[in-house]
Amino acid sequence: MAGNTFGHRFRVTTFGESHGVALGGVVDGVPAGLALSEADLQPQLDRRRPGQSRLVTPRREADRVRLLAGVFDGRTTGAPVAFTFENGDVDSSKYEDLRELYRPSHADFTYEARYGHRDWRGGGRSSARETVARVAAGAIAERVLASLCPGASVVCWVSAVGDVEAAGIDPLSVAREAVDRNDVRCPEPESAERMEELIRSVRREKDSIGGMVSGVIRGLPAGLGAPVFDRFEAELARGMMSLPAAKGFEVGSGFAGTRMRGSAHNDPFWHDGDRVRTRTNHSGGVQGGITTGEPVTFRVAFKPVATIFRSQETVNRSGESVTFAARGRHDPCVLPRAVPIVEAMAALVAVDAVLGGLGVRVPAAD
Amino acid sequence: MAGNTFGHRFRVTTFGESHGVALGGVVDGVPAGLALSEADLQPQLDRRRPGQSRLVTPRREADRVRLLAGVFDGRTTGAPVAFTFENGDVDSSKYEDLRELYRPSHADFTYEARYGHRDWRGGGRSSARETVARVAAGAIAERVLASLCPGASVVCWVSAVGDVEAAGIDPLSVAREAVDRNDVRCPEPESAERMEELIRSVRREKDSIGGMVSGVIRGLPAGLGAPVFDRFEAELARGMMSLPAAKGFEVGSGFAGTRMRGSAHNDPFWHDGDRVRTRTNHSGGVQGGITTGEPVTFRVAFKPVATIFRSQETVNRSGESVTFAARGRHDPCVLPRAVPIVEAMAALVAVDAVLGGLGVRVPAAD
Amino acid sequence: MAGNTFGHRFRVTTFGESHGVALGGVVDGVPAGLALSEADLQPQLDRRRPGQSRLVTPRREADRVRLLAGVFDGRTTGAPVAFTFENGDVDSSKYEDLRELYRPSHADFTYEARYGHRDWRGGGRSSARETVARVAAGAIAERVLASLCPGASVVCWVSAVGDVEAAGIDPLSVAREAVDRNDVRCPEPESAERMEELIRSVRREKDSIGGMVSGVIRGLPAGLGAPVFDRFEAELARGMMSLPAAKGFEVGSGFAGTRMRGSAHNDPFWHDGDRVRTRTNHSGGVQGGITTGEPVTFRVAFKPVATIFRSQETVNRSGESVTFAARGRHDPCVLPRAVPIVEAMAALVAVDAVLGGLGVRVPAAD
Amino acid sequence: MAGNTFGHRFRVTTFGESHGVALGGVVDGVPAGLALSEADLQPQLDRRRPGQSRLVTPRREADRVRLLAGVFDGRTTGAPVAFTFENGDVDSSKYEDLRELYRPSHADFTYEARYGHRDWRGGGRSSARETVARVAAGAIAERVLASLCPGASVVCWVSAVGDVEAAGIDPLSVAREAVDRNDVRCPEPESAERMEELIRSVRREKDSIGGMVSGVIRGLPAGLGAPVFDRFEAELARGMMSLPAAKGFEVGSGFAGTRMRGSAHNDPFWHDGDRVRTRTNHSGGVQGGITTGEPVTFRVAFKPVATIFRSQETVNRSGESVTFAARGRHDPCVLPRAVPIVEAMAALVAVDAVLGGLGVRVPAAD
Repeated sequence: MAGNTFGHRFRVTTFGESHGVALGGVVDGVPAGLALSEADLQPQLDRRRPGQSRLVTPRREADRVRLLAGVFDGRTTGAPVAFTFENGDVDSSKYEDLRELYRPSHADFTYEARYGHRDWRGGGRSSARETVARVAAGAIAERVLASLCPGASVVCWVSAVGDVEAAGIDPLSVAREAVDRNDVRCPEPESAERMEELIRSVRREKDSIGGMVSGVIRGLPAGLGAPVFDRFEAELARGMMSLPAAKGFEVGSGFAGTRMRGSAHNDPFWHDGDRVRTRTNHSGGVQGGITTGEPVTFRVAFKPVATIFRSQETVNRSGESVTFAARGRHDPCVLPRAVPIVEAMAALVAVDAVLGGLGVRVPAAD
Repeated sequence: MAGNTFGHRFRVTTFGESHGVALGGVVDGVPAGLALSEADLQPQLDRRRPGQSRLVTPRREADRVRLLAGVFDGRTTGAPVAFTFENGDVDSSKYEDLRELYRPSHADFTYEARYGHRDWRGGGRSSARETVARVAAGAIAERVLASLCPGASVVCWVSAVGDVEAAGIDPLSVAREAVDRNDVRCPEPESAERMEELIRSVRREKDSIGGMVSGVIRGLPAGLGAPVFDRFEAELARGMMSLPAAKGFEVGSGFAGTRMRGSAHNDPFWHDGDRVRTRTNHSGGVQGGITTGEPVTFRVAFKPVATIFRSQETVNRSGESVTFAARGRHDPCVLPRAVPIVEAMAALVAVDAVLGGLGVRVPAAD
Repeated sequence: MAGNTFGHRFRVTTFGESHGVALGGVVDGVPAGLALSEADLQPQLDRRRPGQSRLVTPRREADRVRLLAGVFDGRTTGAPVAFTFENGDVDSSKYEDLRELYRPSHADFTYEARYGHRDWRGGGRSSARETVARVAAGAIAERVLASLCPGASVVCWVSAVGDVEAAGIDPLSVAREAVDRNDVRCPEPESAERMEELIRSVRREKDSIGGMVSGVIRGLPAGLGAPVFDRFEAELARGMMSLPAAKGFEVGSGFAGTRMRGSAHNDPFWHDGDRVRTRTNHSGGVQGGITTGEPVTFRVAFKPVATIFRSQETVNRSGESVTFAARGRHDPCVLPRAVPIVEAMAALVAVDAVLGGLGVRVPAAD
Repeated sequence: MAGNTFGHRFRVTTFGESHGVALGGVVDGVPAGLALSEADLQPQLDRRRPGQSRLVTPRREADRVRLLAGVFDGRTTGAPVAFTFENGDVDSSKYEDLRELYRPSHADFTYEARYGHRDWRGGGRSSARETVARVAAGAIAERVLASLCPGASVVCWVSAVGDVEAAGIDPLSVAREAVDRNDVRCPEPESAERMEELIRSVRREKDSIGGMVSGVIRGLPAGLGAPVFDRFEAELARGMMSLPAAKGFEVGSGFAGTRMRGSAHNDPFWHDGDRVRTRTNHSGGVQGGITTGEPVTFRVAFKPVATIFRSQETVNRSGESVTFAARGRHDPCVLPRAVPIVEAMAALVAVDAVLGGLGVRVPAAD
């Protein structure tokens, strides 16, 4: 496998470069009969789009999705759903002077080490623009999820920017409306304000800053996922760590759980009517790789974006030391736009697990 | 896929239950011509084995590996390498009274939710005993790595137990000999002593404690891995998060990197003779999912083991609340024994990437 | 992938060499709750076993299967089912003089070309003894099929040996009992007698002879399989053509259908009560890669076995021309023993399709 | 997996419906550095195109390929190569009256059985128009093959139409130029003439006729392929049997080989200088699933096309018996246009095997 496919049953293959003809994706394994149109994909795409607020890059990309296949009479047919985003006329000229140098902490050097040459226009295949196809696929996944698991939902939010960490957000109740109430996408207003301030100050300094996205998948039944290597949390980790700039992932108690005693960390079971539940959820909704029926909670760490407007030392292909500073329009902080992308990956993992189903038993009568 | 296979080119499939007839694994994709014998696998298996020190469970498991296939005249043939660990006569009687209840934060409930019934003897397939097969496969992977990438190595160590965190360990130079100098497998002696003390006190309290394993893969060339979904760090994350009790993963600067500015986080390139290197390594040896040639550094968070000797509240299959306390022999802290297991997963990911190779270009002459 | 795994959902991985320590397999994806014991696998293994009749090699192999994992309290758990066949003490000495030469139409030369060296004892991994693991996996598949698709069945038989072709066998009704009524496994007694005669005469001539196995999968519902690349018949073709000595495969009208007009070949639909059926079945139970609900009919061509007792010209590794003649115990015709092997592959393909199911739609209410 | 992907290392995913917005494909695993443009794909596309001769359907499809991704500066980058074929404005009205009925031996009924509804416009996803994406992918594969295996080539031809079988065509020397010398694509002129005559007479009878395509892959080194399940011939069989209307496949001696004695069928080895060769090639270029270095020879059986202009009996969705006759423009015989499609599948299998390479050994020094 060459790395451009995600999922076992709901399989997403993406393609396209930042300044190529078009980006897009193919989703194989979409159940038949699902109502689906381009309009269904647009809301999440709009939340990922540059230029949507004063906090993010004013770069304009239409990000208008076009469905090519897999839908007939407004419903999916079971055939692969394919979609593209045409790039239109892109001005790659400002990248011309980057073609010979390796930007620090970008993929310029590594792609060239692997492939011998690289598409230097806007980062080529390594550009975060690639995530546009993930968001489209994730929007399809969300619709499948809603259809097969009524009540299931994915909600993510910015929980930290630099050292500003939001507290008191309840994963059981947080909603996308609350997340979108401010530009930074942190549903805790006071922290949100401090985050915005930090981002503005970082931008003034021509610098960038990292942060964290927290998320929850609610409404999944107990018994989803697989044992051993394909644990639900392992698939989630793989999905999140495949995002540009992701440097860390945790589920449930995560790194903080390493400091706890077992007596405090263990989640006691109780019977809520017919349903087995846990009083606490340090497990983060998974035990032994399989869902407990409690919300799946997780957090993703993003490093500061590598593109900064300050002068930096680096080398070029000829072995010379050079200095350079980025120009153009770039986000000083990817976190607000990362929210729908993280949601997309979570939805892809969730729907893949749902399609893996509980149908792995022979009839009880046997 | 049903979850028991890991890897794309170097594919490991494991099987077996804690108290079943035998555990084992099949590795498809082992290059031909590699010198290999059972003795080559034993050292890492011995480091994983229970009863090896006063810190870990005195439970006795022989963990004697038996090679069934894939080796001829002392060398691999290219056919799948298969191995087993016979369980011999196991006494499952002490689990008899657990068959009806769900132990908190174990996989009892979730396996039953998924499969309808479960092998309750010693945790069945969900037991951490399953990792014995990973360690055997990892030992094969380490030999392949040594053969295809001379100089490459994987070293892991305990970097935290509870709130005792070790500092000052240099990933560029730390060696397994230093790691094994004490029972806790922390190469920083002072912290190691405090960790041991903490583990002993936790055991006296009939409790358990979590911790972290740090690791490094040294000596990989630049250009390994894949873009987009199969990034080197995504595969590593998946591998680590598929381990029992793992709750978090980070690469390079990880979660701490979220607090940094881009100007500080970016790794400046320089030419070290012919080789392009970076002055810092916040990237953790990967950029855009592909290795830079710098050491790949990572950390894994493990929750406290769920088996504790204190009385706990839970429920049984009949819907009754019950209390229970574990008996028998169990580790109060899995960290020391987790070290060779984490090394195994790192070696599997590394060798899979190496076999993916750089051979993805057509001849330059084309 | 390195070639030793078959199936998408019901995944069989086999291992082992003809004269190695043990052969075996791992089946991942076996539904939980299925009653399964070693005794369930033995009947088909006995039909494959050498020495079962005067027609086949009197070579003795116990072929006693041992279940290692995946079964608890007599039922499958959803964990991988693993099994082995211990080889015991095998006398490889008679192969000693073959180690330097390439037997014509065996895999000696090609394995060495690929892997640099080869396990020359009894053919190593390329030996047809490898199929013992397929038959065990197929027997599990047959049980799953019976449980998930009550009434479904797989029946295969020898339809030709050399130029003796059996006629008049009805795929709708032929049963294993009829197949096993004679040693050659052809349910048409007169042809069976002529086939036996031919095999005996070929053996006297120290030669070997090919033939065909025909088969039918009955009782599958309409709608199984997948479009485009994973068509039911494509999976079946892959499975059959992966058998040692297989040189051809056809489904439904097959090669004879190439001579027909569309007006004669098309299968007219009719309504049999609620069920849509076809009056003829030239399609062989599949249209567009998906089952019609009619019996899936197919045929597999096997070349004459390469091992003959006549003197043959060949070369050795040193570049010299040599002559050699096989010794020991070998079948002059593999067809009778191929029947349970072909049934195994058919069952694996069928159960994989059944597990792919019809559950690929969203609820109609959507 | 949902059936729309082919290959292990050179992975082709196709999408699109006959009358949808666009058809296309994504090829992941294309080596970097390959010179590639749309013009390179067009020649094989033109050989598949309807309307190219008086023998095939005069239906007009532009089949103009558009490269969307994976090529930069005229060379592949290692990123997925994606391409589309826009359908433009398609008139689906003539299919309107077919929406309620199941055409005999089409996939109307089976798709509906599987997916609940179907895209009835021009056959939707089940249309042979889907093969346009295979041909584009195959053309890329042919270029990779030429680059990695200089001298390797794939040539296919029509070897039978109905009962007119061509003889005396030498797989060692036959070239595409000879194949294209007549409209029927049979390089034996006398048979070609009789085939054309037969096709014309069948068309006059408003009927259709089947036939066979033979093929050869020349110039592959010994040692390609894999043992057991992924044998070269098994992959080839799967690829060919995944083609619309394919009912049979054979390699080397095929079905005719079942009538031979081993003494005649075995291919004696000899040394041709340093190279080990075989005097005959009944094996068809593969032994034990791995290439011998001799030409890989095979044959594919195609049934008569199901679309005929005669009146036929069938049923509709409401359970009524109806008669219908096709209208519009359809081939009475797909064979001439099948040639480039079969070549595409052969090239895909060959390049996948080449990318699996011989690099599966550790250095000899080990």
